Amino acid sequence: MTVADLGEHALLARLLSRLPRPSGSVLVGPGDDAAVLAPVRNERLVVTTDAVVEGVHFSRAFSTPADIGHKALAVNLSDLAAMAATPRWALLSLVLPGSWLVADVENLMDGLSALAGRYGVSVVGGNITRTDGPLVVDVTAGGEVGSRRWLTRSGARAGDDVWVSGTIGAAAAGVEMLRAGLTEGLCISRQRRPEPRVRLGVAMGRMRAARAAMDLSDGLADALRQVAAASGCGVRVDGNALPIAPEAAEWWRGRSVDPVSAALAGGEDYELMFAIPKRGGGRLRNVTKQVADPPLTKIGVFTKDAGVLIVDRDGREEALPRGFEHFSYENR
Amino acid sequence: MTVADLGEHALLARLLSRLPRPSGSVLVGPGDDAAVLAPVRNERLVVTTDAVVEGVHFSRAFSTPADIGHKALAVNLSDLAAMAATPRWALLSLVLPGSWLVADVENLMDGLSALAGRYGVSVVGGNITRTDGPLVVDVTAGGEVGSRRWLTRSGARAGDDVWVSGTIGAAAAGVEMLRAGLTEGLCISRQRRPEPRVRLGVAMGRMRAARAAMDLSDGLADALRQVAAASGCGVRVDGNALPIAPEAAEWWRGRSVDPVSAALAGGEDYELMFAIPKRGGGRLRNVTKQVADPPLTKIGVFTKDAGVLIVDRDGREEALPRGFEHFSYENR
Repeated sequence: MTVADLGEHALLARLLSRLPRPSGSVLVGPGDDAAVLAPVRNERLVVTTDAVVEGVHFSRAFSTPADIGHKALAVNLSDLAAMAATPRWALLSLVLPGSWLVADVENLMDGLSALAGRYGVSVVGGNITRTDGPLVVDVTAGGEVGSRRWLTRSGARAGDDVWVSGTIGAAAAGVEMLRAGLTEGLCISRQRRPEPRVRLGVAMGRMRAARAAMDLSDGLADALRQVAAASGCGVRVDGNALPIAPEAAEWWRGRSVDPVSAALAGGEDYELMFAIPKRGGGRLRNVTKQVADPPLTKIGVFTKDAGVLIVDRDGREEALPRGFEHFSYENR
Repeated sequence: MTVADLGEHALLARLLSRLPRPSGSVLVGPGDDAAVLAPVRNERLVVTTDAVVEGVHFSRAFSTPADIGHKALAVNLSDLAAMAATPRWALLSLVLPGSWLVADVENLMDGLSALAGRYGVSVVGGNITRTDGPLVVDVTAGGEVGSRRWLTRSGARAGDDVWVSGTIGAAAAGVEMLRAGLTEGLCISRQRRPEPRVRLGVAMGRMRAARAAMDLSDGLADALRQVAAASGCGVRVDGNALPIAPEAAEWWRGRSVDPVSAALAGGEDYELMFAIPKRGGGRLRNVTKQVADPPLTKIGVFTKDAGVLIVDRDGREEALPRGFEHFSYENR
């Protein structure tokens, strides 16, 4: 049965019935004109929205419906994590071609739901609209953060170290592998099902270990550029220190592509980047004691030379590559 | 210059720079990974999301970009009003064809901004994504409501009167007029620029005048059906009492269409419907003293016969017509 056969109203009811029971702080859940939520006392509200579009952020040839649902929520949880916010709720807006099978939409919802469940996120409402164009999955996520515990892009100061979580480059190599016909491996999983670094972001804010943070949705080079600009700093990165995913580095070396440049420019890793004061080692250790995975790597330093963005490779200085624009699967 | 020429990042920065300064409760505004807001103490959070899609909810032949921006926010403020929530903030997700002119996107933003400004709503974040398909404007709106002051669809009881705000049928007649080549008049303005009934909804909740509410996004018949079903009631509507917009009634009579059936089935008026206890006249007068416009009309009563939905026309009983599905401008 297709979406057009069932109709949007019936489909929405069916999807919402698949959701787990919302948490006690949800006073009015899905199915009314809006949802009503009880905020945690004295916490600040953190909200973000991000859409994934067929042909731009994913291709049905490379991702299952469940992958798409996972990714649509993951990119939003990653934004909350970059603000050090604990995710609480999400709203789902589906712009759906009538030709989609209802079973596929249910799988998309299950992928989103499973990730929501792992982080205690209640899906509190949704909306379905028909389209003659490509699928759009637009998620808004809300979270909470303690007073003055949030992290922004603008808090870095000259002298702060640059740290990055996990490994980089895997998602960018993954999309190349998918285009080359591969179907499995770490890079491909990372491209299909990025893991938002929720616990790490929250711990960094709560323990006041970082001064600034940003997620790597558009790549490490873009994040370095944005945080430096917002903070009025420059940045100097040690090209040899980058935690490039070994599978990605091997893939690029096999194609005579420089792994450092490719990993800096490649997006969609959804790791986090932090500015951490040089004398903040104690607080940083408290964070890593609580959140051991993913590991953190020091990759550089913010400098006082606003606008000067340098990659140092064994003493050779290069300009930081430009940022990443999302792959268009259809157009190349 | 087109959107493709400028690029999404530069366009987003440009749009956000056009926004008025956000209110003091916005601790981190647009331009970071997420927005941070200070909730009003002891208030509940109310959130909703709704998208408008080119070819489904609007046509560029019939609406200016500013109309589209207005409507995309208005439909969300209407949902908050139906919950009796005061709107506070909005997030905008634009899924944008590369061929759009930047000037048109700026006009869309100005239409949205002007409505936001009138109701004290801060646009706290946004996101732009490319698409090869039609324009999608997805807005999430957040508001606040006092403890136990919100209104749902499920609070009506047998014996409560049914009241509706303003006039009905204008937006549905308006889309027919646009298709017939007309360009002006009340019905057409209503179709292009619906006015969310924010003050009325908030007053109804605050003064405890209503027991249930819903907005008329999908038409009066649909709202009656949904509130009756959610409340376990039936409903009996006086077909002669409906406040049909005179211009719409005249349009339909001129085409041998029954105005009562057309106005019941037609959607997109974004008026509000309430269930009000028979003995609640004093509280209702307090509301109308504070919010004189739009006027309210009593149109029927909720009954104990669950599922029985009747329109009484001079003693002739008819079944309530089915709900409304959004017009597809392209497909007919």
